[in-house]
This record gives sequence, C-alpha cells and structure tokens, in this order.
Amino acid sequence: MDEPVTRRVVCPGSFDPITNGHLDIIGRASTLFDEVVVAVGVNAGKSGNLFSIDERIDLVQRVTADYGNVRVEPIDGLLVDFCARHGIRAIMRGLRAVSDYEYELQMSHMNHRLSGVETLFVAANPLYSYLSSSLLKEVASLGGDVAGLVPDLVLSALDERLAERRAKSA
Amino acid sequence: MDEPVTRRVVCPGSFDPITNGHLDIIGRASTLFDEVVVAVGVNAGKSGNLFSIDERIDLVQRVTADYGNVRVEPIDGLLVDFCARHGIRAIMRGLRAVSDYEYELQMSHMNHRLSGVETLFVAANPLYSYLSSSLLKEVASLGGDVAGLVPDLVLSALDERLAERRAKSA
Amino acid sequence: MDEPVTRRVVCPGSFDPITNGHLDIIGRASTLFDEVVVAVGVNAGKSGNLFSIDERIDLVQRVTADYGNVRVEPIDGLLVDFCARHGIRAIMRGLRAVSDYEYELQMSHMNHRLSGVETLFVAANPLYSYLSSSLLKEVASLGGDVAGLVPDLVLSALDERLAERRAKSA
Amino acid sequence: MDEPVTRRVVCPGSFDPITNGHLDIIGRASTLFDEVVVAVGVNAGKSGNLFSIDERIDLVQRVTADYGNVRVEPIDGLLVDFCARHGIRAIMRGLRAVSDYEYELQMSHMNHRLSGVETLFVAANPLYSYLSSSLLKEVASLGGDVAGLVPDLVLSALDERLAERRAKSA
Amino acid sequence: MDEPVTRRVVCPGSFDPITNGHLDIIGRASTLFDEVVVAVGVNAGKSGNLFSIDERIDLVQRVTADYGNVRVEPIDGLLVDFCARHGIRAIMRGLRAVSDYEYELQMSHMNHRLSGVETLFVAANPLYSYLSSSLLKEVASLGGDVAGLVPDLVLSALDERLAERRAKSA
Amino acid sequence: MDEPVTRRVVCPGSFDPITNGHLDIIGRASTLFDEVVVAVGVNAGKSGNLFSIDERIDLVQRVTADYGNVRVEPIDGLLVDFCARHGIRAIMRGLRAVSDYEYELQMSHMNHRLSGVETLFVAANPLYSYLSSSLLKEVASLGGDVAGLVPDLVLSALDERLAERRAKSA
Repeated sequence: MDEPVTRRVVCPGSFDPITNGHLDIIGRASTLFDEVVVAVGVNAGKSGNLFSIDERIDLVQRVTADYGNVRVEPIDGLLVDFCARHGIRAIMRGLRAVSDYEYELQMSHMNHRLSGVETLFVAANPLYSYLSSSLLKEVASLGGDVAGLVPDLVLSALDERLAERRAKSA
Repeated sequence: MDEPVTRRVVCPGSFDPITNGHLDIIGRASTLFDEVVVAVGVNAGKSGNLFSIDERIDLVQRVTADYGNVRVEPIDGLLVDFCARHGIRAIMRGLRAVSDYEYELQMSHMNHRLSGVETLFVAANPLYSYLSSSLLKEVASLGGDVAGLVPDLVLSALDERLAERRAKSA
Repeated sequence: MDEPVTRRVVCPGSFDPITNGHLDIIGRASTLFDEVVVAVGVNAGKSGNLFSIDERIDLVQRVTADYGNVRVEPIDGLLVDFCARHGIRAIMRGLRAVSDYEYELQMSHMNHRLSGVETLFVAANPLYSYLSSSLLKEVASLGGDVAGLVPDLVLSALDERLAERRAKSA
Repeated sequence: MDEPVTRRVVCPGSFDPITNGHLDIIGRASTLFDEVVVAVGVNAGKSGNLFSIDERIDLVQRVTADYGNVRVEPIDGLLVDFCARHGIRAIMRGLRAVSDYEYELQMSHMNHRLSGVETLFVAANPLYSYLSSSLLKEVASLGGDVAGLVPDLVLSALDERLAERRAKSA
Repeated sequence: MDEPVTRRVVCPGSFDPITNGHLDIIGRASTLFDEVVVAVGVNAGKSGNLFSIDERIDLVQRVTADYGNVRVEPIDGLLVDFCARHGIRAIMRGLRAVSDYEYELQMSHMNHRLSGVETLFVAANPLYSYLSSSLLKEVASLGGDVAGLVPDLVLSALDERLAERRAKSA
Repeated sequence: MDEPVTRRVVCPGSFDPITNGHLDIIGRASTLFDEVVVAVGVNAGKSGNLFSIDERIDLVQRVTADYGNVRVEPIDGLLVDFCARHGIRAIMRGLRAVSDYEYELQMSHMNHRLSGVETLFVAANPLYSYLSSSLLKEVASLGGDVAGLVPDLVLSALDERLAERRAKSA
C-alpha cells in the first residue's frame, strides 16, 4: 500500500423518513470508512412519499449532524453512476429478512457487473430488525405509538405531517 | 476526519483447501481495505481436515502472494479476540445460500455483542456460488474433475493428497 | 393460578373470500382457546375486494356457525387496539411459505412492541399450503375448478359474483 | 413401454423481452424433451409491457430459430388449459432465488391439482441468476449497459424502444 | 363453552443449559395458558450434554420458580405421548431463523399427524434471536463473556462446569 | 426431430427405507419419461443405515414392480458417472423445504458443471412434504405409528428390523 486512499462508502435509500434502523447502519458505516455518503432517492417509492426530497434530505442531515464524516446527497439515476461520480467503491446495506437478502443480492450482482462496485451487507440491529419506513408510516397513520423507532425530531415531523393529512382528508 | 487510519479487515475460515471462491472474496476485500488478514483456523472442522494447519497457511500464502496487502495468520480461539489483537474492526464473509446467511447473521450478532466488531457480507461470485471446500473434496475424492474451481497449485496439492490417501487405504 | 380466565384469540384477515385454509386455522384455534374472534378487515386489499365487508362477514359467519365459540367482527384500524377492546392477548396466524413467515414475524414484533400482544403461528394444513384467496380468485376467474378449496356455499357465492363481473364487462 | 410418445414441455412467461436467462432454460429444455413450446403471455404484467404480444413472440422466435424443436405460441387463460390443448404434460421453470421458489411451488401445486400437469424446475445458470426482465428494463432505461444479458437482436430492439419512449416523454 | 378447561402448553427442549431466550418463551407461554410444562429431554444431544438431566431440570426449576404456573418434567420418548399423558393439547416453540422454521414445521406436521397435538410458534425476542445453547457453550468455552445471555445462576453453573473441564483436560 | 430417443431419468437416494414420498416422485417421473432408473446409494448415510444395500434395493423393486418402466440399480461413486454409463441426461429430485432446495441447487450446479447433466426438481406432494426417511425412523423407533407414510410391505420390514434392534440392545 502506497499513499493513503480515502475510503468512501454510500448508504442509499428513500429515507421517507429516516428511522433508527437506518441511523444504526449509517453510524456503523461511519466507524469503518473515512467518509459516508447518504444517497437519498429523488424519485417517489411505489406508494408515493410522505416527505419531499428536500424534507427527507434535511431530516437525514439533522440526525447525522454529530457524525463528522457523513454527507447527504440526492440521487437520481443509476447508483453505479453516482458511485463513479463520487469516487465510491462500496455500497453499504443493512439486512433484515431473507427476502431482503435475495433482492439485495440480485442488485449487488447487477451493480458489480455494471461497474465493479462492491456491496457490503451488515446485519440490522436486532432491535430494529422488524422496522421499515413503510411499516412505520402505516402504524403511525393508524395512531400507533412509534416513539423509540425514529429520532425525536423525525417523530415530530411525522406527527405534524400525518396531522396535516388527516386535516386535509377530513 | 483527522489523521489517516489503517483500515484492516479479516477473512476467517478453515481453508481446507482454499478455493477460487475464497480467493475471489479475498481479492475483493483487498481493493476495499488497506490490509486484509486471512485467518486460518487451527482446529480441525467437523470431519477432520485434509491438510494440516501449516499446509493450509502455505497454500493461502502462495495463492495470495500477488496481492500486496494480504497477510495470513493462524487463528485459535475467539475471532473477536483475534480482531482485538490485530487492530481489526471488521470481518468480511462471502455469502452463498440463505442457510449460510442465517448462520452468519447469528455469528455476526454474537461477535458484535462480544466486542463491537462488525461483519461485512459480500455476495459470492455467481460462478462459485455452489462451491464449498467440503463439496470440492467430496467430488475430487470420487474422481470428479475440479480444475477451474481451485488455483492450479491447490489442484496439484489436492491430487497428491488424495492419491496418498488412496494408497494408504488400499 | 387463581380464578379462571377466558382465553381469547383473534384470527385476522381480509377473507375475500374465506377458504378451507382459513377455516382449518379457525377450527384449530377453537379447540385451543375458549373463544375465537375472527376479525374481518374493513379496508380493501391491494387490488380491491371481490366481496363487500358485509358479504365477507356473512360468509365467515355461515361457515363457522357450527363452532360454538367463534365470533366474527369487522376490524378497522390497528389490530392491537382491536385486541385491547376485546380483551384478547393473542393473535393466531397460519403460516405457509417462508416469505409469509418473514412478513408475519415483522408484524409480530411490531405488535408485541406496541401492546405486548402475542402472535401464535401454526403450520398451515399441507393440503391447503399452496392456497391463498388471491390465487383462488385468479384461478376461478379464468375458469379453473376450485371446488374442494372453499366451503360449498363460498363456491356458490364466488361463481355468482364472477358471473356478474363477466356479464358487466361483456 | 409400448409405442414412442412425443415428450412435450412448455416454458411459459411474459418475455418482455426474452433474456439470456430465459434462452438458457429453453435451450436446456430442448435437449431433454422432443418438443418445447414457449408460451408467451398475452396479458400485460403488473407495470404494463414494453413490447406488444406480437413483438415479444417475434423476438422469441428469432432467437430460438436455431433450435429445431422449439415452437412459440401466445397464451391467454389458464396454463393447464393450454397444456391440455397442446398435449403437454410438463411445465419447465427456471429457479433463481428462494422467493421465486415459493411462488413457483404454490403455482405448481395448484396446477397439479387442477389437471395433473407436472412442473419441472431447473436451477438458473449462475451467470444469469440475478437477471429478470424487469431489472433489465429498469437498468437499461436509466442508461446502464445490458449487453451480454440479452441476445444482440433483443438489445437493438430494447435500445430502439427506450429511445422512442424518451423521445415521446421529452 | 361449557365448564372451564385447564389450558396447558408444553415447552420442550434439552436446556443444556437454559438461556434467556428459553426463559423469554416460557414467560410468554405462562401469560397465555393456565399451565406451562417445561419438558427437559433426557437423552444427550448430538455432541453430548454439558449438564446432566438432573442438573438441567434443577436449573430450569430455579429460574422459573417465580412463575406460579410453570412445572418442569423430564421427557423420554415421543413428545406426543408426553402430551397425551399430561393432558396437553399444544406445544409452544420459539422461532429464530428460517432454518429453524422449516425443521419445526416438519416436526409440527408429524406431531399433528401422530396425535392431533398443535404446535404454536412465537417469534423469538429480537434480543435473543441469535442465541442458542450450543453457540453459548462454544463462546463461553473459548473465554467469551456471556453475561446477560443467561440468568445469573446459570452463568455461575456454566463457569464452574467449564472450569472443571479445563482442569480435567489440563 | 429425427428418430425417437429413449428419454431416461434417474431418481437417486439412499432409500433407507423407501417412503410414500419417494414413491410419489418415482411414479410422477415414470409418466414423464420413457424409463426411470432408481439409483440406491451403496454407502451408508451419516448415522449408518437401518437396511443393507440389498434390502433397500429389494424394497424399492417390490414397491415399484407395477410400474412398467422403472429399474433399480445400486450406485457407488459420482452420480454424473452413473448417468454417463446409463445414457441418462436428467436427474429428478423432489423438493420439500427451502433448505432442501439450496443444497439441491448446489449439487445441481456442480453436476451440470461436471458433465452437463440436468437436474429436474418437482414439488413434493403436500401430504408427504414433512416426511423424510430419518424422521420416519426416529418416530418409528420411539413407537410412533407411521402407517400411511410408507407402503405396507415397508412398514412390515421396518417393524421387524426395529424389533430385532430392540431385542439385541435388551
């Protein structure tokens, strides 16, 4: 090994909104690599997003502000192109269930074939292994208590947004 | 980010013997981290080993000699203790099937709990996704052709060892 | 153990329509607990329902009439709130495939976290292990024979409804 | 065994468009059976088709022209009815991931129950184990290079169709 | 529903030794049923037991003493015969990984066929989802800290037994 | 297609003893191919065999006697060599659980690589999906009733053998 290389990793997702499960993965990535880029997907997911791209980026930035080596960027288009532009050689993904694993494996092979970028999987923290943004939103929208599953400022944003929606549909 | 940190990763296994599947993972680790330590298990696996610990280390060293940042060490005892002694914060493991995944997840959680060390999983190269040292030895011992599944010098060592065994049992 | 407690369990679902697979689970629940509450989801599933909430409840009531301890209720909102209102401490779910299992596990953890309610899984009867309401409707709508997979009165209701649909779209 | 029977097998799918993964399965089927019927689904998949039924049939015919015993047919309605009409006793399906496997198993049991037709599963070629028509289209539409994953003439058709779409939406 | 029935459930295992994962399942069973019978397998597991049948029963009894409705019994022979003798209609099992699930499903079907006894599965507490007695013993025997994974009195017994073994083999 | 080819398939296993699950697969193979060769493994399984190779072959022959196109042969060595010697281009395997599937997939890829032989998987009959020779022997040896899971003449042979064993160990 010659001169030092900056080791960068990307954590991609839609983060609608960021949960404690996401935050756990980002924090672990930040201890293993020199820089972590959180790539927030511009496009809406299957059932539309609750928060806009700007709101989602803002929430991620605020809850990761304490990490010195985390940066947040929007992403539009192929993840491998994003990696090439940002000098990133590895993607980090949290794994929960087996079904996650298979979809992720498929994407990992495709991304490796497209550009040689590697995907590193880490086991989700057992405390959040059942947690996804979509389940979180479903439970919260039906009045379930999701405190402890998202950072406090995300909880406030979520409550506010769901109240707006209820007001609108009333 | 302050001063540069040496990013080290460990690839543990029994390597009895090292296959092209193992080598693929080690090579990929060597591009992502500053140093790769291959930790070869001293203890025999379930059905005894075909090669001694010294032979297994020697084979790994010879087939990884071209990588400038790969080092081979014997390991005895807990992997987390090995990591602590060598200043390693991450374990890298190749994943093949779902059953792999679950056992590895279990070990990953236990190791994280014991010492905070992280386990990074990468998808096995599809070409070697069906390959394990034990299947390799079973096929080779029944006379099947395993060229292309192990480096050439491992193939020679394997043929020689199996011929010795046949001579003995004759 | 002091005074006798009434042991209640809930079998939730959309039952659009109830199949022999559902009926098998409900029957088994009825032998293990003092009371079984079948909770029929008010909201339409992903692709709309074939039967209205009243029709679905009616069909469930008619095919479970012989069990002395089964009650049918509509459900709207969180299942854990329904359980709290009805004094229910356990949810019973039939498991078919691995993918079922993982989704169900996720919901089970979330529900346990929200209120302490337990989810009890039972293995689907092998005879109905490949059966779901959506596959049933797909096959029946293409003219496949589904007798034996649903109770007779459900079969009649299904045939009638599909005939109506065909008449409308003709 | 009396007089020789013509052994026919069907490879069903939407083939939107046919990939090298599909072609691998069809080629293997053609060596095991006397005749292979490729059944191309008339109806659009979940997210609409990129190619019309005639275009999809045409592409399959052109890339399978060299096999002497492959025939291409449109299919509408139940696969078991198609099998009955064409004197087919077995369906051949490639398997990739575990989630594939479970859905396919469910369909296999249902089809066997409906008519006694058997489903034969073969392991997808590891080289294409991560490949699906939908992932292919997603990657290609975002500008990723998919050469080597589809036959050359399919690649041209795909490029042309995606260019048309881009022109339209511009 | 006529007169009250005593609802009994059995938690079977080898408990060599009992872990916090086992204890979590037993505790949850004790809130859902009138009586819980913990059935401790007399026969040694695959790799021999660390504790004798009497020691294992004693440890289970001491750590479940606070539950008013838990009873501990040795079991030898078929679980369904044990259930018949003790008037038990349901087995309760904790589920961790998918591989657990499939073995357990197989046993569940066989037991149901043999005697009609039902098996109720509950999701393991995420905190202990990676924990098994065999992994626990492996880690502890290599000097890993397993405090928090077993009740304190089990930890003492484990330390003592492993010290005896080390003394013997020295 | 020129002159008719004899389509042969092999059903390999240790058949210690043959169960109704095995018989179901063999029967289905016999309707799809011109000839079915049942290959009975000479070597003992992991925990030793209950029946000798001659006894196992004899039982398979007697329960498949009614099929006109089934032949039984001992197998020793690589399955692909057996296939080459007998002019067989396909292996047929029944699939039960996901864990089966992954091991079988691994073997399928290895066998395809060694000789081009194909493996065709069929879904186990749901009625026998939980059945294996080893579970059968375990249950029978503990006195469980396994009638209906094996052909009658296998049941007699099994009862006799287990009685001999009990007499010996008494």
